[in-house]
Amino acid sequence: MGIEIRIEADELKSFTEKIFAQVGLPDEDAIVEAEVLVWANLRGVDSHGVLRVPQYVKAVDDGYMNPTPDIRILNETPATVMYDADRAFGPVVTTKVMRHVIEKAKISGVGWGLLRDTTHQGAMAYYSLMAAEAEMAGMAIVCSPPNMAIHGSRAPGAHNSPISIAVPAKSRPPLVLDMATSVAAGGKISLAVDKGVPIPIEWALDPDGNPTTDPNVATILLPAGGPKGSGLALLFECLTGIMAGNPMLAPNLGASNGRKFIQNSIVVAVDIAAFTDIVDYRNNVDDLVDGRKLLPRADGIDEILVPGEPESQVLGERSRDGIPLPAGTINNLEEVARRFGVRMPNLL
Amino acid sequence: MGIEIRIEADELKSFTEKIFAQVGLPDEDAIVEAEVLVWANLRGVDSHGVLRVPQYVKAVDDGYMNPTPDIRILNETPATVMYDADRAFGPVVTTKVMRHVIEKAKISGVGWGLLRDTTHQGAMAYYSLMAAEAEMAGMAIVCSPPNMAIHGSRAPGAHNSPISIAVPAKSRPPLVLDMATSVAAGGKISLAVDKGVPIPIEWALDPDGNPTTDPNVATILLPAGGPKGSGLALLFECLTGIMAGNPMLAPNLGASNGRKFIQNSIVVAVDIAAFTDIVDYRNNVDDLVDGRKLLPRADGIDEILVPGEPESQVLGERSRDGIPLPAGTINNLEEVARRFGVRMPNLL
Repeated sequence: MGIEIRIEADELKSFTEKIFAQVGLPDEDAIVEAEVLVWANLRGVDSHGVLRVPQYVKAVDDGYMNPTPDIRILNETPATVMYDADRAFGPVVTTKVMRHVIEKAKISGVGWGLLRDTTHQGAMAYYSLMAAEAEMAGMAIVCSPPNMAIHGSRAPGAHNSPISIAVPAKSRPPLVLDMATSVAAGGKISLAVDKGVPIPIEWALDPDGNPTTDPNVATILLPAGGPKGSGLALLFECLTGIMAGNPMLAPNLGASNGRKFIQNSIVVAVDIAAFTDIVDYRNNVDDLVDGRKLLPRADGIDEILVPGEPESQVLGERSRDGIPLPAGTINNLEEVARRFGVRMPNLL
Repeated sequence: MGIEIRIEADELKSFTEKIFAQVGLPDEDAIVEAEVLVWANLRGVDSHGVLRVPQYVKAVDDGYMNPTPDIRILNETPATVMYDADRAFGPVVTTKVMRHVIEKAKISGVGWGLLRDTTHQGAMAYYSLMAAEAEMAGMAIVCSPPNMAIHGSRAPGAHNSPISIAVPAKSRPPLVLDMATSVAAGGKISLAVDKGVPIPIEWALDPDGNPTTDPNVATILLPAGGPKGSGLALLFECLTGIMAGNPMLAPNLGASNGRKFIQNSIVVAVDIAAFTDIVDYRNNVDDLVDGRKLLPRADGIDEILVPGEPESQVLGERSRDGIPLPAGTINNLEEVARRFGVRMPNLL
């Protein structure tokens, strides 16, 4: 890994904002985009952090991501709304839609938002947690073009669509799940490439559809739990791409022609107060977590962790000590900084 | 397996109706209960079929299932409703709530129903498919007391909460997923007991929390995909039991005192017409399935099957040739038949 370089979160956020402003995003949108990326780094989800900045810059150059989109409501009912994102930066449009469905949920009990033609949304947990912070249960699902074999096949037939669900607790951090439907997320394979280590045989296939332990040729992800991850991914497409009239898993489409940047997504907020007392709810979530901690541990496990807890632990450490970035990421950011004449953040 | 005994579906349904009427269910409720159980048998989901009849009869005897419940709406908003099921037979109350949320979805775009204190609901796909038949996307989730180890633990800390999602197609049957969050459903372990065969080591733990291949001592299920199935199960409890103010995963509760019969559940309907053209939607689901069929197959796979397709194939066969029941199930049904003076169905 070489020397570990750390950057203070606010420094990194400010830098990222300036880059995106240079790319053409309105200032308020650049702030949102930087916030969501650095938030992921702070929680240790580096695959969805600032390493994306140079990729996004290129996608704008190539016309695949739109810094000044015409975001429009296509249709709306008391509890639902569908937005055309016009290839907006994902966090810019997704935070907007989640705020909208939270307002709907206050009146209708639930708000169900559908996004058509957004681009990379970052870590989906950001949006489900927005609902949890508003004392609601939040859910977010996204589907992109195929990168995962479905059960019984050896070629890409589904996206490893992630789902995030979050709920508020009382003394504890919100309970938040954010999982891909593949055995391993693509970022874990990239990490194995960087580290020069093999991957488990059950993670992925090579381009010919054969199992492999070589991360350099592992291009087709495998579904978690076989038919389970595979089935969830197919039904998630039916709730996102097909529901938006913008199917992502059409045969032979692959990732051609910039479509790999396109995503369709749902964000959902369920108002807890529509069903039960919010104080009771928060207490019961704390009790749920407390109870799990007391269970007998499996061999080799020091502490039983609940969804979101590993990320919360990293958040504490990185808020205090800064965000570590590999030399490769630093180099890529320096290149973008030079191009736009933006000063690099101070290194700790 | 011995001699295979088959019963014509309508014969079996009529028999089951009469038993439940004798148990004290109003005729219209006995019809619903019989319909949902025999429907599961017709689709090959025998673990959720008529083998449950004697168990339900005993649960009524013991006061755990209520044949004449006072089903009440506890609260309601334009898009949500929460019912107290008063320990009703699951299908009786769940079909009622799903019909209600389908009506809500016609007005509000989405209907979100929460059921408190129901009992065994049978196969959850029945309810998500009700929505699909109404040209909606349907979802159903249920949580009961702990029967599955969470990731990192060796004791029951979650229920292997199933989720079902269904959507309508055009020429093809609806796409319908119905999966437990455990590696294997409990019914598969019971089947291994009946067949006298070992189970894979990754399915379950014995009562001491050790991995086992002996289905006779396999009492603690293991989560599908480790932290993924485990995380889904915990968040599903937050959407069901905790949302209903009736936590199922409280520490040390176990399955004591008849609580093992209690379930909390959500049923959700999303109106496709609120977002897109229903004809386009149906065509796109057909295309999704057609496209999957054309993908290169994994070794040993004759045909790529999508969610719900194996069950549809069994449905065709059993509608024509009758439902096969093992001798043990026949014996148990005969015992109940004698008690209530109901004539056994004709055997084919």
